[in-house]
Amino acid sequence: MWGGRFAEGPSAIMREINASIPFDKALWRQDVAASKAHVAMLGAQGIVSAEDAATIAAGLDQVAAEYEANGVPENWDLEDIHMTTESRLAELIGPAAGRLHTARSRNDQVATDFRLWVRDAIDQADAGLKALQAALVTRAGEHTDSIMPGFTHLQTAQPVTLGHHLMAYYEMAARDRSRLADARARLNQCPLGAAALAGTGFPIDRQATAQALGFAEPTRNSLDSVSDRDFALDYLMAAAQIALHLSRLAEEFIIWASQPFGFAALPDALSTGSSIMPQKKNPDAAELVRGHAGRIIGSLTSLMITMKGLPLAYSKDMQDDKPPVFEAASLLTLCLAAMEGMVTGTTFRTERMRAAAELGYATATDLADWLVRQENIPFREAHHITGAAVKLAESRGIALDALPLADLQAIDPRVDERVFAALSVDASVASRASYGGTAPEQVRQRVAEARVALGLE
Amino acid sequence: MWGGRFAEGPSAIMREINASIPFDKALWRQDVAASKAHVAMLGAQGIVSAEDAATIAAGLDQVAAEYEANGVPENWDLEDIHMTTESRLAELIGPAAGRLHTARSRNDQVATDFRLWVRDAIDQADAGLKALQAALVTRAGEHTDSIMPGFTHLQTAQPVTLGHHLMAYYEMAARDRSRLADARARLNQCPLGAAALAGTGFPIDRQATAQALGFAEPTRNSLDSVSDRDFALDYLMAAAQIALHLSRLAEEFIIWASQPFGFAALPDALSTGSSIMPQKKNPDAAELVRGHAGRIIGSLTSLMITMKGLPLAYSKDMQDDKPPVFEAASLLTLCLAAMEGMVTGTTFRTERMRAAAELGYATATDLADWLVRQENIPFREAHHITGAAVKLAESRGIALDALPLADLQAIDPRVDERVFAALSVDASVASRASYGGTAPEQVRQRVAEARVALGLE
Amino acid sequence: MWGGRFAEGPSAIMREINASIPFDKALWRQDVAASKAHVAMLGAQGIVSAEDAATIAAGLDQVAAEYEANGVPENWDLEDIHMTTESRLAELIGPAAGRLHTARSRNDQVATDFRLWVRDAIDQADAGLKALQAALVTRAGEHTDSIMPGFTHLQTAQPVTLGHHLMAYYEMAARDRSRLADARARLNQCPLGAAALAGTGFPIDRQATAQALGFAEPTRNSLDSVSDRDFALDYLMAAAQIALHLSRLAEEFIIWASQPFGFAALPDALSTGSSIMPQKKNPDAAELVRGHAGRIIGSLTSLMITMKGLPLAYSKDMQDDKPPVFEAASLLTLCLAAMEGMVTGTTFRTERMRAAAELGYATATDLADWLVRQENIPFREAHHITGAAVKLAESRGIALDALPLADLQAIDPRVDERVFAALSVDASVASRASYGGTAPEQVRQRVAEARVALGLE
Amino acid sequence: MWGGRFAEGPSAIMREINASIPFDKALWRQDVAASKAHVAMLGAQGIVSAEDAATIAAGLDQVAAEYEANGVPENWDLEDIHMTTESRLAELIGPAAGRLHTARSRNDQVATDFRLWVRDAIDQADAGLKALQAALVTRAGEHTDSIMPGFTHLQTAQPVTLGHHLMAYYEMAARDRSRLADARARLNQCPLGAAALAGTGFPIDRQATAQALGFAEPTRNSLDSVSDRDFALDYLMAAAQIALHLSRLAEEFIIWASQPFGFAALPDALSTGSSIMPQKKNPDAAELVRGHAGRIIGSLTSLMITMKGLPLAYSKDMQDDKPPVFEAASLLTLCLAAMEGMVTGTTFRTERMRAAAELGYATATDLADWLVRQENIPFREAHHITGAAVKLAESRGIALDALPLADLQAIDPRVDERVFAALSVDASVASRASYGGTAPEQVRQRVAEARVALGLE
Repeated sequence: MWGGRFAEGPSAIMREINASIPFDKALWRQDVAASKAHVAMLGAQGIVSAEDAATIAAGLDQVAAEYEANGVPENWDLEDIHMTTESRLAELIGPAAGRLHTARSRNDQVATDFRLWVRDAIDQADAGLKALQAALVTRAGEHTDSIMPGFTHLQTAQPVTLGHHLMAYYEMAARDRSRLADARARLNQCPLGAAALAGTGFPIDRQATAQALGFAEPTRNSLDSVSDRDFALDYLMAAAQIALHLSRLAEEFIIWASQPFGFAALPDALSTGSSIMPQKKNPDAAELVRGHAGRIIGSLTSLMITMKGLPLAYSKDMQDDKPPVFEAASLLTLCLAAMEGMVTGTTFRTERMRAAAELGYATATDLADWLVRQENIPFREAHHITGAAVKLAESRGIALDALPLADLQAIDPRVDERVFAALSVDASVASRASYGGTAPEQVRQRVAEARVALGLE
Repeated sequence: MWGGRFAEGPSAIMREINASIPFDKALWRQDVAASKAHVAMLGAQGIVSAEDAATIAAGLDQVAAEYEANGVPENWDLEDIHMTTESRLAELIGPAAGRLHTARSRNDQVATDFRLWVRDAIDQADAGLKALQAALVTRAGEHTDSIMPGFTHLQTAQPVTLGHHLMAYYEMAARDRSRLADARARLNQCPLGAAALAGTGFPIDRQATAQALGFAEPTRNSLDSVSDRDFALDYLMAAAQIALHLSRLAEEFIIWASQPFGFAALPDALSTGSSIMPQKKNPDAAELVRGHAGRIIGSLTSLMITMKGLPLAYSKDMQDDKPPVFEAASLLTLCLAAMEGMVTGTTFRTERMRAAAELGYATATDLADWLVRQENIPFREAHHITGAAVKLAESRGIALDALPLADLQAIDPRVDERVFAALSVDASVASRASYGGTAPEQVRQRVAEARVALGLE
Repeated sequence: MWGGRFAEGPSAIMREINASIPFDKALWRQDVAASKAHVAMLGAQGIVSAEDAATIAAGLDQVAAEYEANGVPENWDLEDIHMTTESRLAELIGPAAGRLHTARSRNDQVATDFRLWVRDAIDQADAGLKALQAALVTRAGEHTDSIMPGFTHLQTAQPVTLGHHLMAYYEMAARDRSRLADARARLNQCPLGAAALAGTGFPIDRQATAQALGFAEPTRNSLDSVSDRDFALDYLMAAAQIALHLSRLAEEFIIWASQPFGFAALPDALSTGSSIMPQKKNPDAAELVRGHAGRIIGSLTSLMITMKGLPLAYSKDMQDDKPPVFEAASLLTLCLAAMEGMVTGTTFRTERMRAAAELGYATATDLADWLVRQENIPFREAHHITGAAVKLAESRGIALDALPLADLQAIDPRVDERVFAALSVDASVASRASYGGTAPEQVRQRVAEARVALGLE
Repeated sequence: MWGGRFAEGPSAIMREINASIPFDKALWRQDVAASKAHVAMLGAQGIVSAEDAATIAAGLDQVAAEYEANGVPENWDLEDIHMTTESRLAELIGPAAGRLHTARSRNDQVATDFRLWVRDAIDQADAGLKALQAALVTRAGEHTDSIMPGFTHLQTAQPVTLGHHLMAYYEMAARDRSRLADARARLNQCPLGAAALAGTGFPIDRQATAQALGFAEPTRNSLDSVSDRDFALDYLMAAAQIALHLSRLAEEFIIWASQPFGFAALPDALSTGSSIMPQKKNPDAAELVRGHAGRIIGSLTSLMITMKGLPLAYSKDMQDDKPPVFEAASLLTLCLAAMEGMVTGTTFRTERMRAAAELGYATATDLADWLVRQENIPFREAHHITGAAVKLAESRGIALDALPLADLQAIDPRVDERVFAALSVDASVASRASYGGTAPEQVRQRVAEARVALGLE
């Protein structure tokens, strides 16, 4: 492939470290598609004859059919998917195959293939997120009135509804989808025709190849075109944020499924047992989602490090772009599907949730707010009064609304019996009806809006 | 601040680990602005009296004036900027200060302040990028015809123009600005009114506070509002990509300024000498830009790790969100200014660049392309013929176009004397006139378009 | 400082990006110590006169006294702690100050100073770990017989003792201390005398300066001496592992302190309340320890990225070595102290722990083991029998040892009444007396060994 | 495997996310070895009969022989290498296979297998480093007198010898080997017998299994034994530091091989050509080594993130420990071999190196040092005089030692003609004979010591 200039072939170690075919064979569909677009353009522009163009296109179809049927062969001497395909093409159609590489280089070829692959990965992640959103919205709609403790610092804070809690993840997924859309738009320029680094003297039509491959336009600078891996980083950054969100949801399912919480019974289909403890039902899928977040972030870190400080244009370090992206994409697909299954299949133990919300003085803020509203006491002072009430109740081991009115009045005489109406978890939740708040009416509105946005209504 | 429930105050270690005032005092402008918007709304909604609202607003102005004049005091007992400000407000206006915290919590307060701060940081980075783009375009315009070696693998590949090379960074900066714009749009929702986590029972007007603070709309889920730090991650991800691009440019300036290259004389104003070697002129600013990329990526890594697996809603781990963002923003501002100065102030030694391009058989591809075009030889075969020619020239220690025609014809008889016209660096560069290619005419078009985009024309 | 070769001084941006004095002033003690060792050697070797050496040493003492009293002045024009000190020295003693820099460079000077600083940081971390170990051992000794549920996957697995659980962290800390000791030994070579990069022609005595500064020996290669930051990475890697261990312990305290678990009441002195929810007592210190782990790992990542691909010898990127190390060391000190306080001050609710252990079929493995031991049933078969028993008990909502013997025998007739002795949590724990197991007798032995190792006995 | 408690089998997504057999089959040798040690101990302790023990051992040998011949089958339903092996064992020897799992769990089994695997990886890395050291020492021995420019900031600083430069990497490798040795010693405790998390009630002999598997001793705490992955992190941290060192060496080879430097001709066997530019000879192996450093650091980051904040004991997240370790080990082996080949096979162009050293005023420090030594001028003043001389020479475009004496004396009258002897690169290098300096005599001593340390003499 490199002409007659090398006195000596590659060593064994070189063949192994250099070969990317073990992983870049994943690009075969994109490679064939880009080659077909390229040769069609070469033909249309008269750079190769119409006959050669047709022969090459047919040959490429045959190579693709072979790959589809038998997989892509891994021959380290052919290095990568591009040489593997071109070599097979030459076997099939003879010397005309050599014309395919006119006015292009592996540098713009791989940049094009990889963009196409990442574009598909973006679309796949978006579909996974949309399915997860649908699952969240469905379960949230079932639980707009189910009361659970809202936590901050994993301490019982204020009562919320389970529907409201699930809809928080809907919002995260919505941001994630917006990030993917941004990444897709930024990626969608075609580097084909940048050739090795400088463009080409052949009269190519870059608009034509860009359009044929579904790109919005060609890239604008040939050096940048072959040196740039921003599109891969954009994808990994979006993937990392998705993984972070999923890791938080996974953490919650793990905690909720623990015996002391008992808020959730995870689906058997996403749990495992133990080889030694027969009673175990483990939240393995959720733990793997949480663990995979580490690897997806590690993939992003890896590619950022690899790209740092590389001079223009293409350097071989950039071959280390694909394994992290392929790994992250594979893990992400699994994580999205697993969490969708978890959301859909989990049995929420709403009675345990409600009971937990009723403990822990979760309505103390409601007492403070009542004092502000009814008695016009500055909030900071109301907070102190309430703190004293909680301390008293705690010392007696009883709930806040079990304190006799007299005791409350001993703390502050402005309290009257109307306060007890504010201290139930139902009253507390219903009262928080500010826009985006946890009140069932608010959650029902958000769910309805989300269903429309997802096309479920 | 926490009411009367604690039997014991914080230990010395707790005061130190817990206090965020040493760094979150940077938020004071945002904190005052958000408090003013909040209290104006409370007044408009009748939640506090008009008189109290006015008193509080005036008090906040006075606090801000004190901060502006004397800085923000650091008292660990007041923990953070929010308590510091409210405490001073209470000293100034008395108990009415306690009404400011009605219908909000530190959780939504800090989320609002921090979003406002990050929004400003985004705008600052965008301005820095725009200035860098202007510098790049200006220098590129001066050098649309200056020939230099284009490298791949840091090996001489094909001649390119310096203007083309600089414009590659213009493209990177354009993508970076698009990323910042995306992040800004996604960030621009107001969490104020989410309160601790559940929303509030007070009849607040979240649209009003959102609008007053320049947000497009309020956030839609109160749990998400106080648990979310996506906006900080979005910013850090954009910052990391900017830093990666700057690190590549810095690497090139460092290599170009080395004696063996000698392509560039960096500005004295951005260089340093040595305490021991009197002849040294070191590219310190470029090296620091390259080094800072490590710290900016480290900041991103840090916050991703911190957020992983946190259950909803607010956890104190999230206090570790600010130091990485503040550090990255500070480093990024310096890096952008340093690279703008470097681009503007560097003397490019174009004669050295041209001489280097003329060595290294940089026009070998042009010979191959000539064979394809003139003799209709398949590219792969032309590549082999050219390889033999390069090997012969190299063995004699001469340039490709110094080979006698007879020797070239001995390799392949189809070569004729017209080939020599294709082998000069000027001819090579001029020929690569495909869209986005390195030909001066192409670069002039790109520069012209960029000047319009930047408002320079 | 750089001689008369520069036509133009540094720009404002250069002064700011270049100055390290804002952070490297932390090295002042090390810088003075190293300078004193250096000048004493110069005097002893006759490279400077005895009189000059004495004058310089006295001047350095005076500079140190000023720093101690008033802090280190930050003048960006003096760049770093080395120039700041030498500049003040020159003011104090005149031109003789200029002889101090004979036979050294800032490159070996900063490498020496920073090694000394990191060596102290290692010793400080070791002391913090030892204190934490003492706290763990003390609390473990109190709870060798306190039964709690052992979790895997955060699901109740088998009963263990709290003492055993705490001693797991003792083991982690022991490994951490061994890592610090390894790092310290590897660090303990003196780079002073490597000069700028090549060594020096002055007849210096590197053994003397190494010994004076407590190093085991001088470094062996001058290029490596000024290019190496392994010692900083070694420290950060040890710090990262310590932080990971502390993050796990912190996570457990956070979960244990949650209302549904209720296993632990954290000390007031390490908790905080809420500005809006008067009932809250939040595990802030534990959360900050968990969050700080993210930043410490981020610091390590940062320095690894910075060092990657740097050619020899010193490059200015390496100035970015100190902020991550300083930040990590500061956070680590706080984390160690906070966790020691948490271990010492927490009230363990052993009755809640025991009750939780008695639920959840935690002794199912004991039933399986009993079948193996008493009836010689292969373990895999015993596991199946036990699984059926658990399923039956679960369907009735009762504990395993509440199943009537007849029902157990219906599942497998080989069960007899002796089995009930194996099904209590006390019996279960006592039985696991293999070396390193959870049986109280084992834990007591481990605690006793640890107390001896720590010098507590 | 989990007994009869699950109503429903795993879903398709669960089977895929849960199965570790696609990667943990790499542990098969370790798994068989550990099982054999375990069953031998069970037999010796009378926990299983001698006959069963022998049957199981023979069966394990047969399974191993099958794996050796045909590879390990990947059946997702059998999840991992442990179940795969045990399942095949049961097919071969019947129900007795079920006795193998007595007194152990997959938790301690996988911890043991993985430690054994990592121990081998450590030994392999150490061998690779030793071979690299031998290559470095050999080439350094050839070039103790070859002069090249020593760089700081990639600017010519002072002349050094190539041998000295190569020996800097010998020192780095020596530290790396010491890190591996430390990691190996810390790893070398056997977790087998910790069972699921709590130890076991069977009378096992943990010393026996530890000894049989080459461990120094058993681990001391069963909870820690199954929760700990420090050994994997220790390995990855050592691997990251090795990769960082190799990335620096790779960077230097890449720069040295560039046309403007021309210091090195890399071996054909470790270079590649271009598909489009026939003259290219690219340093791909070095670039891949540099790129792989990013992935190895990413692997470390990944596992640190995964382990952060995991409560005890085993969580399924920890299954994400193996892919990063396997990937890093595989990349590291390639990198070490590639760099050894590069060091051994590169042709150093010493005449180009020497010529570069003679340019760039590399002996300016020697002039300053001469002024200090001969004329007793304080170094700082000598530095200023030299700076003026460099400026003058530079303005004339000549070397420092080409300045007439009169001109030097015009700058400072104390200069005399003896100075010219100090200004040659040979004199400069020879003079830097301080311990560890670049003088040929010093380098010869270091090489001699290293050859002894490596057993080459």
